Amino acid sequence: MKRLNLFFKKRKKVYLNEILKILKIKDKKKYKNFLINDILNLDNAKKNDITFFHSSKYIDLLKNTKSSFIITTPKLSSYLPKSKTILLVNNVLLSVAKLTEYFYPNSLNDKFENKIIKMNNKKIYKNVTFGLNVLLGENVKIGENSSIGHNSIIESNVILGKNCNIGCNVIIKNSVIGNNVSVLDGSIIGKKGFGFFPDKIKNIRYPHVGIVMIGNNVEIGCNNTIDRGSLSDTIIGDNCFLDNQIHIAHNVKIGKNCIITAQVGFAGSSTIGNNVMIGGQAGVSGHLKIGNNVKIGGGSGVIKDIPNNTKVMGYPAKNIKKFILENR
Amino acid sequence: MKRLNLFFKKRKKVYLNEILKILKIKDKKKYKNFLINDILNLDNAKKNDITFFHSSKYIDLLKNTKSSFIITTPKLSSYLPKSKTILLVNNVLLSVAKLTEYFYPNSLNDKFENKIIKMNNKKIYKNVTFGLNVLLGENVKIGENSSIGHNSIIESNVILGKNCNIGCNVIIKNSVIGNNVSVLDGSIIGKKGFGFFPDKIKNIRYPHVGIVMIGNNVEIGCNNTIDRGSLSDTIIGDNCFLDNQIHIAHNVKIGKNCIITAQVGFAGSSTIGNNVMIGGQAGVSGHLKIGNNVKIGGGSGVIKDIPNNTKVMGYPAKNIKKFILENR
Amino acid sequence: MKRLNLFFKKRKKVYLNEILKILKIKDKKKYKNFLINDILNLDNAKKNDITFFHSSKYIDLLKNTKSSFIITTPKLSSYLPKSKTILLVNNVLLSVAKLTEYFYPNSLNDKFENKIIKMNNKKIYKNVTFGLNVLLGENVKIGENSSIGHNSIIESNVILGKNCNIGCNVIIKNSVIGNNVSVLDGSIIGKKGFGFFPDKIKNIRYPHVGIVMIGNNVEIGCNNTIDRGSLSDTIIGDNCFLDNQIHIAHNVKIGKNCIITAQVGFAGSSTIGNNVMIGGQAGVSGHLKIGNNVKIGGGSGVIKDIPNNTKVMGYPAKNIKKFILENR
Repeated sequence: MKRLNLFFKKRKKVYLNEILKILKIKDKKKYKNFLINDILNLDNAKKNDITFFHSSKYIDLLKNTKSSFIITTPKLSSYLPKSKTILLVNNVLLSVAKLTEYFYPNSLNDKFENKIIKMNNKKIYKNVTFGLNVLLGENVKIGENSSIGHNSIIESNVILGKNCNIGCNVIIKNSVIGNNVSVLDGSIIGKKGFGFFPDKIKNIRYPHVGIVMIGNNVEIGCNNTIDRGSLSDTIIGDNCFLDNQIHIAHNVKIGKNCIITAQVGFAGSSTIGNNVMIGGQAGVSGHLKIGNNVKIGGGSGVIKDIPNNTKVMGYPAKNIKKFILENR
Repeated sequence: MKRLNLFFKKRKKVYLNEILKILKIKDKKKYKNFLINDILNLDNAKKNDITFFHSSKYIDLLKNTKSSFIITTPKLSSYLPKSKTILLVNNVLLSVAKLTEYFYPNSLNDKFENKIIKMNNKKIYKNVTFGLNVLLGENVKIGENSSIGHNSIIESNVILGKNCNIGCNVIIKNSVIGNNVSVLDGSIIGKKGFGFFPDKIKNIRYPHVGIVMIGNNVEIGCNNTIDRGSLSDTIIGDNCFLDNQIHIAHNVKIGKNCIITAQVGFAGSSTIGNNVMIGGQAGVSGHLKIGNNVKIGGGSGVIKDIPNNTKVMGYPAKNIKKFILENR
Repeated sequence: MKRLNLFFKKRKKVYLNEILKILKIKDKKKYKNFLINDILNLDNAKKNDITFFHSSKYIDLLKNTKSSFIITTPKLSSYLPKSKTILLVNNVLLSVAKLTEYFYPNSLNDKFENKIIKMNNKKIYKNVTFGLNVLLGENVKIGENSSIGHNSIIESNVILGKNCNIGCNVIIKNSVIGNNVSVLDGSIIGKKGFGFFPDKIKNIRYPHVGIVMIGNNVEIGCNNTIDRGSLSDTIIGDNCFLDNQIHIAHNVKIGKNCIITAQVGFAGSSTIGNNVMIGGQAGVSGHLKIGNNVKIGGGSGVIKDIPNNTKVMGYPAKNIKKFILENR
């Protein structure tokens, strides 16, 4: 799915020479000074975007990328076709972090959003019901017949569909939300993900310029935290229902019609299929692929991909028949 | 325990003919057009209430029900005595959901509560200390010497006892709370439970017309979520102490003197005895019966009933001696 | 680390005779009526402080304590050198709770903090950005270039360093926070810990007169709960990064450069070394010692001490090689 880059201000003209300087690549003569449009993942990048290849796990995406400019390590560079412009670095992800910050200069700003419109400007919203002490940023779009509960904060640039019911004490930022969506009290949607580079003196924050996209007819329970993506988006498909105290990390993509019970947690960048049911307190590790129609029992710890139409349970999660047999 | 039906407006006159129409039962001639009072569980229903029987698990409750009108499936109908008026449907719970919504027309309303009294009306509360930005609904009762912290919202029809200390950013709705109860910052009590019927296009919400009942001398920690019941109530007994980030789903009933540590989760409709101690991050599946004086070790996943005076640990939870032996 | 006793008002002159009375120790003639300065742990107490010894586990601390006055049981008293003044009781911790409350008369007050300064007094803070509806208590110190988000509450006596970014809906009390610290939306820092004595009629609360100390360059995610210490402090070292929905109980001490992923929970009084990485949803039991450079896999349940430089996973957590072997 294409990343919606709606909210972060991108530097307008970035030339390859600037990039070489940031990445401390010295033999600039080897490179022609192209104009680079954006920094994106292998699958989202177009011809004039720069992308990166940091693990042989992504070899298939590499084969199909449209990007002409690829950051990688000397070791991994053998996988790359000669038609590409290759930028060699020691630490791919750290380089990408630095470059993303260069493309998006405000993406690491950590402060609360302070551009709040005055209360009486809320009249521009037709048929929207506002509770008391609701705070809205600039350029917030809210569809007809929606309601925003007391003390909730909708930051600048959020798009909210029709017939949505936002509870009280909710915080939404960097998000695009469909129609007929409920977000219950105390949930926090769209904050930056937990991505950074450990450093003994001071960890280096990874910019998160992705958003949270939520489909239609979705229900998000109380006190959930749904982080926005880093270079791709965090996505929750149509007709998903989420219970309370669920954590969804950056870049997680959840399909349609999923049912996720209380206190479930997803580590970053996992993909969940359609019609998936997950029992309470289960956890899904990062960078996994969970198929369609999968059922994950409560309390499970999923640390491997799960094929379509499978029921699993346990820690680590295994086929449910095996789990039952072993625990008789 | 009898359900307190205090908060949801019930339709006054509902005749059996209307119910037959909603359930799409055709041969109306078979039935006399009785006046039906309410829709309730097998154990709460009286003679003129309609009830339902959807699993042979509840055969004992069926034997003792006072209700004369029972919704069930053709398969399960053989369990029913001939003295009852039987209403046959394919999906019992979906029928009950539709019927509950008919009896309680506003029970599916998802919007935040907007009937907030003005600040200066708070003077009607004697010896109650209010923080700043506290919002109160209509008909809220607060006992003497209680305090409500900053930014907290007590919605209409909540009853709160004497000497209660409600923290900041707390939301309470559809609840009856005893004396000497503390509810710490950020907890959300009384929202609708996570009950609905999955549907590929748009899930169908189950009405939650129950409440949360909390006894005396109870402490509820920070950022907890305690959902109200569907057709019965969610109950927390006297002198229970709950730590932070606990989730209690709809219809859960917890006895007296229980100690529940942080991040514990209860799925719907389980019953917990008296003097039960539960370690951090443990989970209790739905529809279970946990006896008195039970101890559940931290991190356990309880998926079976537990008899009185038992110590369990593990996932799935087993006798603690067995757990220790197996994990030497 | 020395406990900072900044926030709770201590009774000025407490004589041993008063203490004997509270502990119901009868033969007062045996004791000289010393002036006692404070009640503290074995390692923090000085010559004129009273301390306590309630488990042989703490024998090493006992040997080195500077305190002259030790509360213990008849059984444990054999461990004590004759040079100390010994106060024999049946229940050490209950006695300590009573005594702590005597030394700190307001330490059990459960109400929200009501001493909020007026908005226009915020001008005393230089180069601090305040959101709307921010509430500040008395004697709050905030360093330059810090920001406090909308609806956040900083209670009296909190000390906050320079360049700190506090999100929205945050509550901070009884805490000392370093420079360059982020606390993201919805987190609650410094509330009393979950410590009390079970009693069938009404549980007896343990006073929590410790604080939360947070070092420099720390990031605390959303909806976390970090409880303050009882007689010692809860400590988070420099450059620790915490994800969302983490619970840290009273007296937990976390070293430097730790990375703690979402939904992790720590029971009370555990000590975590430097450079420790903990995966999502892992739990650490109470009173444990986790070494330096330890890695704990996601979902693990740690119930034993872990030596330095060890990787563990599982419930109960074991060496990760063993875990992988057993779960092939």
